[in-house]
Amino acid sequence: MPAQKGELVYEGKGKKVYGVSGESNLLWLEFKDSLTAFNAKKKGSFAEKGAINRDIASLIFRYLKNKDVDSHWVRDVGRNEMICEKLTMIPLEVVVRNNVAGSLAKKFNSDEGEELPNPLVEFYYKKDEWNDPFINDEQALYLKAVQHQAELDELKKHALRINEHLKKMFADVGIRLVDFKLEFGRAVRGEFRLGDEITPDSCRLWDLKTGHKLDKDRFRRDLGGVDDGYKEVLNRLRRLGGVS
Amino acid sequence: MPAQKGELVYEGKGKKVYGVSGESNLLWLEFKDSLTAFNAKKKGSFAEKGAINRDIASLIFRYLKNKDVDSHWVRDVGRNEMICEKLTMIPLEVVVRNNVAGSLAKKFNSDEGEELPNPLVEFYYKKDEWNDPFINDEQALYLKAVQHQAELDELKKHALRINEHLKKMFADVGIRLVDFKLEFGRAVRGEFRLGDEITPDSCRLWDLKTGHKLDKDRFRRDLGGVDDGYKEVLNRLRRLGGVS
Repeated sequence: MPAQKGELVYEGKGKKVYGVSGESNLLWLEFKDSLTAFNAKKKGSFAEKGAINRDIASLIFRYLKNKDVDSHWVRDVGRNEMICEKLTMIPLEVVVRNNVAGSLAKKFNSDEGEELPNPLVEFYYKKDEWNDPFINDEQALYLKAVQHQAELDELKKHALRINEHLKKMFADVGIRLVDFKLEFGRAVRGEFRLGDEITPDSCRLWDLKTGHKLDKDRFRRDLGGVDDGYKEVLNRLRRLGGVS
Repeated sequence: MPAQKGELVYEGKGKKVYGVSGESNLLWLEFKDSLTAFNAKKKGSFAEKGAINRDIASLIFRYLKNKDVDSHWVRDVGRNEMICEKLTMIPLEVVVRNNVAGSLAKKFNSDEGEELPNPLVEFYYKKDEWNDPFINDEQALYLKAVQHQAELDELKKHALRINEHLKKMFADVGIRLVDFKLEFGRAVRGEFRLGDEITPDSCRLWDLKTGHKLDKDRFRRDLGGVDDGYKEVLNRLRRLGGVS
């Protein structure tokens, strides 16, 4: 018997999350066509965005699985949905940067694109009402995002390992992985596991040769061609070998 | 022969820094009567502020010396000056918080005054043009504020140790040390040493019983009685025993 979509559990900015009937350890994610930026102060959408992002996220989760990086992905359903393992989410956005861009460029008054000598990891506390503030390790512990410094160190290690894989994956299809955001949860035995999504909504992706932006900055900055950017990312990733 | 004031080396927001003739390892600090806030966008002053702050800083440095915490303080000169060891400054503001207040209250949408279960340490990168941004450890290393994580850990340890002494010192005169900012430099043999100043310009100090503010927030927030606040802090600290 195929899995049945259950009750709506939560509606986020880019996804709806449902239960799976009779499967309390699983969730059913539906990728929406809507686009938001600046903590949902700016709103938009484009046709097929949900299906494109589902395909990109699925492709990346499967790529990582082949590199022994587990994620919550279980299998795809329909055109814009996937079934995932239910995780106990850590309320942190874990940002990895290979190049200066976005808020970091503003903060350090630097040109976007400058390569960092080592990737930088940043934590942001997930709380819309606070505008997801940038925090340091001590603040993350104060906010009880996790209990111990060792867990923060482990999250950083995971994030950097994923970065190495994704940097190579994108470089192989002519894309620079400038920066991206990860979210982790705990799986049944308490171990950290990659959750949420990795898509042009959560990454800065630039054409390696031209620097052309292929990600949500096209929407944030009104650059036009948002849908073409997302489609281009998917088309290039489909060329990748070795994704089962 | 008494020391002679040398050339002006640097004029900061609250102090002028001079050389000391014939003493290349020393600096001559002159505490100014001016007050600034919000990266010098707001300006003010009051008579005797320089002398009061010199006395407070000197008193605190001597108190810490008796607790085996070295600072750059060598001796007082005149009414609003002190001779200090010249340090190679670390471009970090090291903030220690015992209670939620100021930018942290805004960031976490909390009431000012809430006691933190453990003191929080934060680093801000000292650069006026960037507005002294809040940074995490990885960013501090990227900016080469120091070379190694171990040095950041050492700065945190120093700051927390100083906090323990100052919390007690202020509590003994009926003042709550809400938060404060430290700056460190390297002394001749490369070891970290406390520099700059500790005064109502760089601390939040509340009367323990009434919560009355005795610090620069009176100026920042136009509460009036700025000079009375600073004078009260000095008068209370003068009651302390055991400062040589």
